[in-house]
Amino acid sequence: MIDRDRLSRELDSLGAISAEPAPVVTRVVYTEADLRARRFVKDLCVEAGLAVREDPIGNTFARWAGLEPALPAVATGSHIDAIPNAGRFDGTVGVLGGLEAIRALQRAGLRPRRSIELVIFTSEEPTRFGIGCFGSRMLAGTNAGALRDSEGRTLDEVRRAAGFTGALSDVPLPKGFYSAFVELHIEQGPILEEKGLDVGVVTAIAAPATLRIEVEGEGGHAGAVLMPQRRDAFLAAAEIALAVEHAAKSTGAPDTVGTTGICDIFPRAVNSIPSRARMDIDVRDIDGRRRDAVLDAINEAAEKIAARRGVSLRREVLNADPPAMCDSVVINALERACETQAANCQMMISRAYHDSLFMSLIAPVAMLFIPCRGGVSHRPDEYSSPDAIAKGALVLAEALGRLAE
Amino acid sequence: MIDRDRLSRELDSLGAISAEPAPVVTRVVYTEADLRARRFVKDLCVEAGLAVREDPIGNTFARWAGLEPALPAVATGSHIDAIPNAGRFDGTVGVLGGLEAIRALQRAGLRPRRSIELVIFTSEEPTRFGIGCFGSRMLAGTNAGALRDSEGRTLDEVRRAAGFTGALSDVPLPKGFYSAFVELHIEQGPILEEKGLDVGVVTAIAAPATLRIEVEGEGGHAGAVLMPQRRDAFLAAAEIALAVEHAAKSTGAPDTVGTTGICDIFPRAVNSIPSRARMDIDVRDIDGRRRDAVLDAINEAAEKIAARRGVSLRREVLNADPPAMCDSVVINALERACETQAANCQMMISRAYHDSLFMSLIAPVAMLFIPCRGGVSHRPDEYSSPDAIAKGALVLAEALGRLAE
Repeated sequence: MIDRDRLSRELDSLGAISAEPAPVVTRVVYTEADLRARRFVKDLCVEAGLAVREDPIGNTFARWAGLEPALPAVATGSHIDAIPNAGRFDGTVGVLGGLEAIRALQRAGLRPRRSIELVIFTSEEPTRFGIGCFGSRMLAGTNAGALRDSEGRTLDEVRRAAGFTGALSDVPLPKGFYSAFVELHIEQGPILEEKGLDVGVVTAIAAPATLRIEVEGEGGHAGAVLMPQRRDAFLAAAEIALAVEHAAKSTGAPDTVGTTGICDIFPRAVNSIPSRARMDIDVRDIDGRRRDAVLDAINEAAEKIAARRGVSLRREVLNADPPAMCDSVVINALERACETQAANCQMMISRAYHDSLFMSLIAPVAMLFIPCRGGVSHRPDEYSSPDAIAKGALVLAEALGRLAE
Repeated sequence: MIDRDRLSRELDSLGAISAEPAPVVTRVVYTEADLRARRFVKDLCVEAGLAVREDPIGNTFARWAGLEPALPAVATGSHIDAIPNAGRFDGTVGVLGGLEAIRALQRAGLRPRRSIELVIFTSEEPTRFGIGCFGSRMLAGTNAGALRDSEGRTLDEVRRAAGFTGALSDVPLPKGFYSAFVELHIEQGPILEEKGLDVGVVTAIAAPATLRIEVEGEGGHAGAVLMPQRRDAFLAAAEIALAVEHAAKSTGAPDTVGTTGICDIFPRAVNSIPSRARMDIDVRDIDGRRRDAVLDAINEAAEKIAARRGVSLRREVLNADPPAMCDSVVINALERACETQAANCQMMISRAYHDSLFMSLIAPVAMLFIPCRGGVSHRPDEYSSPDAIAKGALVLAEALGRLAE
C-alpha cells in the first residue's frame, strides 16, 4: 500500500536541500534552504491533487477534499525546518510520510467522508527566534508577533521578506477546525529500537521550558587584572550550566532533562576576561510542576553564584508550556490501525516536544513514533530505515482513513 | 615640549576608525578598519618628515635619520590593531605618543647621532590568527607563515589580499638592528593610578601561554536523551574553565592569571546537547616555570574531567613564550628621563604581554607605562587622560634623545 522506495527517495531529495553540504542538514526558517524545501513539498502536494494554501506566516495546508467538505477535516503533518547540523528525518518523516499516507489512501480508492489535510508547520525549531513551534503556537492562537530573530529583526519583517504577507491575526484556526490531528515522527529516543517495536503511540507530550540567563560581569585584560579582582561572566555561566545539570538530575525522575545548548561569550577574545555571557537553557518534564521546581532550583542556584561572583543576572522565561495529554479517540484509532496493519506497538510519552503540543489546544491529537537508530536525532547521522518509515506511514494511513470515515 | 592637545586629537581621530560605532573600537588586522588606521598613521609620519617603509606583513617603520645613519637606530612604537569591543588607548598611545615624542625632539632642534625609528607592529592582538604579536614575533625571526585565521585562510593569503607582498623570509630583522627599543603603553592595571604615579618603568614582561582545548562529546536532542546517557561537551568545558581559575588561584602568587576568554559550542542550539566545545585559555606569570606548572595542572584536571564525563580532548599549545627581562641600559635611560622631566615613577613588571616581549630577542628593550582609569583595558571605556599621555610622551622623548646621543 505504501510506496516505500518513492517515499525514501523523496526524503533523500528533501534532505539534500540544505544550507550546508550533505550529510549535514541545516534549514533555518525563512532562509533560502527553507524556502526551497517548501517549494519541493508543495510541488509534490499539487502533483497528488491536493489543494495547497499558505497562511501569513507560511504554515502550509494541502487538502484532499472529502465527500462532506464542510465537516471538520482530519489533519496530519509536521515540520521541515532543521536546526544547524541536523539530519534528514526529524519532521520530514511526518510531512512526506503524511503525504504518502494520503497518496496510499487515494491509490486504494478510498473516498473519505471528511477531508484529509497535510499541515507543514513553520519553524518547529527555535533556532531563529529562540522559541520552538511558533507556527503551531500561532495556529493555536498564541500571539507571537513580537518575536525577534537573533539579528533583532521582527517576525513580521522576516516573514514578509520571505514572501509571506497578510495579517498575522489571520493565522489562528478556530477550535474544532480539525476533528483530529495525528503527527508521525521519529522517536528521537532509544526505546522502540531497543524493544524491536514498529511504532509507539504517544499518550502525553513533555512540558518544555526555555530560560534565558544573561550574566553581566566585568571585562578587562586577561593579563592585567588579578584573579581576586575579577568578576568573570563566563565562569559564573559555567557554574550555572553545571547547576542546570545538577537540578535536572536531582528530581529523581528519569524524565527530567535540563540542557544548556547555547552559551555565548562577549567580547569572545582569548586575552579578554568575559564581561558578559548569554545562556539559553532548556528544561523538560512530563510533569509540569516538577519541571517548574527545576526552574526554581536553577534560579536559586544562579542567584547564589551571581552573589558570590559579584555578577548580575537578567533572566527571562522564553516559554514554559504545559504538558499535553493526547486524545483517547485518536489514540484508539492509532491502536486499531496497528492491529489491522500488524504493527507491534506500545504506548509511550514524548520527551521531545512537537507541534502536536500546540495543536492539542485546538484539536484532539495523538502522535505516532517510529524507531530511529540509537535514539539519535538533531545530528547528521540521524537515521530511520525505509522499512521503519514505510511501516509508520502505513499505520498513519490506516488511522487517517478510520478518522475520516 | 609635547603638544598635548594635538596628540589627544590624533588619538581621538584614530579611535574613530573602527569597524563598530564609537565608543567601541574594533580593528582586526588586515580588515578595512586596520588598513584605514594604518593610512592615517602613515600620513602623519610623512607629514613629520619621516621615511616610511612597510615590510611584507605590514610592520611599518618610520625613520628620522640621525647624523650617523649607518649606526643601529633607536626604536619606539607599539600597535594599532584592536580586539573586538576595545577602547582607544591600548597600543595607540605608544604609536601616536612615539610619533609626538619624535616631533617634540624635532621641534626642540635636536640633531640625534643615531636615527630614531617609529615601529607600528602588525597584529599585536591574537583575534584573527589565535596568536598574539605575530608581527613582532616574525621580526624577531619566528616562522609564523603557517598561521591560519578563523576562516582557515593562511597568513600569506590574507596579507596579500590586504596589499602586503614580498617574501615572508624578508621580515626578520638581524640582532643588533636596533641599539634600543622602548615601548610606551597604558598600564592596563590599577597600580599607577592607585599610587598617583606618572609613569612605570617596566623591568620584566610576564610569560604568556595559550592553550586550546577541544572537547568532543556526543550530541543529541535536548528533550530525548536522558541525563545519565549524556556526554555533554559544554559541561566538560565548563568544568575545565573552572579548573583554569582554580589552578591560577592555587599558585599562591598574585602574578599568576588564567582566563578562558573563548568557549564556542557546537551545534549551538537551545534544543541540542552540545557535541563539541572549543576553548582558548590564556595563562600568564612572570615566572615561566610557575606558569608551566599551571598549564600542567589544567591538563591534569581536564583529563580527569574528560574521563569522568566520557568525552575526548584535543589539546594544542598555541604559544608558550618565555618571560622577558628588560635591559638595564634602557631602564637606566628611562629612569634618568623621569628625573629630568620630574616624573614620579616606580619600577614594575608587565603582566600583559607586548611586542616588546619579542623585540627583546633582537634588541635591548624596556617599557614605559602610564596610568589608565581603573586599570581598565580591552573595553570601550578604557581611558588615559591627555595629561597622563603627554607626560608619558615627554619622558619617552627625553629617553629617546638620550639613547640616540
